[in-house]
Amino acid sequence: MAAKSSDDLKLLGGWFSPFATRVKIALNIKGLEYENIEEDLNSKSDLLLRSNPVHKKIPVLIHGEKPICESSIIVEYIDEVWSNAPSILPQDAYDRAIARFWVSYIDDKLLACLKNILAGGEDEEEKKPHFEQLEEEVLVRLEEAFNKCSYGKPFFGGNNVGFIDISFGCFLPFMRVIEELNGKKVLVDDKFPALANWAANFAADSVVIETLPEIDKLVLFAKALQQKWAAAKAAAQ
Amino acid sequence: MAAKSSDDLKLLGGWFSPFATRVKIALNIKGLEYENIEEDLNSKSDLLLRSNPVHKKIPVLIHGEKPICESSIIVEYIDEVWSNAPSILPQDAYDRAIARFWVSYIDDKLLACLKNILAGGEDEEEKKPHFEQLEEEVLVRLEEAFNKCSYGKPFFGGNNVGFIDISFGCFLPFMRVIEELNGKKVLVDDKFPALANWAANFAADSVVIETLPEIDKLVLFAKALQQKWAAAKAAAQ
Repeated sequence: MAAKSSDDLKLLGGWFSPFATRVKIALNIKGLEYENIEEDLNSKSDLLLRSNPVHKKIPVLIHGEKPICESSIIVEYIDEVWSNAPSILPQDAYDRAIARFWVSYIDDKLLACLKNILAGGEDEEEKKPHFEQLEEEVLVRLEEAFNKCSYGKPFFGGNNVGFIDISFGCFLPFMRVIEELNGKKVLVDDKFPALANWAANFAADSVVIETLPEIDKLVLFAKALQQKWAAAKAAAQ
Repeated sequence: MAAKSSDDLKLLGGWFSPFATRVKIALNIKGLEYENIEEDLNSKSDLLLRSNPVHKKIPVLIHGEKPICESSIIVEYIDEVWSNAPSILPQDAYDRAIARFWVSYIDDKLLACLKNILAGGEDEEEKKPHFEQLEEEVLVRLEEAFNKCSYGKPFFGGNNVGFIDISFGCFLPFMRVIEELNGKKVLVDDKFPALANWAANFAADSVVIETLPEIDKLVLFAKALQQKWAAAKAAAQ
């Protein structure tokens, strides 16, 4: 086995995972090379189970011999260790608290809406309150947050992709999938002009462009997930 | 109205709130004076609603004119702004990632167990899986984490109360309440020797001792909460 340098970076991820995407973007911002290891969630590797024994989940970043778990924690770790490269979190402590607030909001509220809509499958009644929450509350809040945080610049983080951008942007492909599966646009330009513009900037940015999964492939992945959840639900009844 | 200095600190909290307790301990570690404002959750102040318009929850720390929300984010903010005073988070980026990991675990798993046990009221069957998760999984993990993080010292943070100590320790009074209400000890010395010893050190520490609510008063608070939840559950059926 080759000796490992302390800057040796391995990402245990999955092409479909918004959380692994976060780590990829953070590594790109810092210009770091890493080995990307695709995990099969139906047959997790010993390395994953050993590296994240508590949650047994991707992503895990292994830095040298040290595993770091949970996407937002990994992003903060990358930002702190490679602090000379472009910053991901704001420099000012108050701005950092605000960024952490919105990242927590995204992981809580936005994620729940997207999951519940996906889990709703074809059941329009079941999906309705979650679409309402997404369109009338969560995206409205995030549109307001963008206008406050960005100071007229293209990203939440100002001129460059930052912590909120990474955390929110990794869900854009799943939002596109939900739009495809439900035959309607969610991130409507007229209703969310700042976010629609931001989303286009984000997806085209050089640190992001190659990290996002293809929508067609993700639609198939999402359909398989829906079938799996529906079968589990039927079995539980 | 008197002019506000930029170091003017107000805490919108509640004596019963483990999350407000976190902020109080962090402020004590830094030796900061603050105005403690007790919120009535049945009639929230305009200041709270204005300061945390998204979640409308305590605690909020107002620093000068700036509100900071969410207890863990507030603790990190305090640590970063008053960085010359004793540290709350570890200095090393990897140790900081590990501390954040356990804080996230505590906020997710430990909190859910305690809430579910409390919500179970007198229903032993309903409470059973949550007691099992607490006693066979969550506290076992935290005992292991203590042994790894503390390096034989009295706290997760080493010689002093740190980020994990604050986050976990704020739930100790609620664990005591659960022990009282269920007539059994949870944090059993023989099973969790490191945590039992840590809990005694924590509660007696000078930065903590006056922040923790009285158990008798918290038992009454918890019983009122149980009645409120039971009534809401009955109304929903």
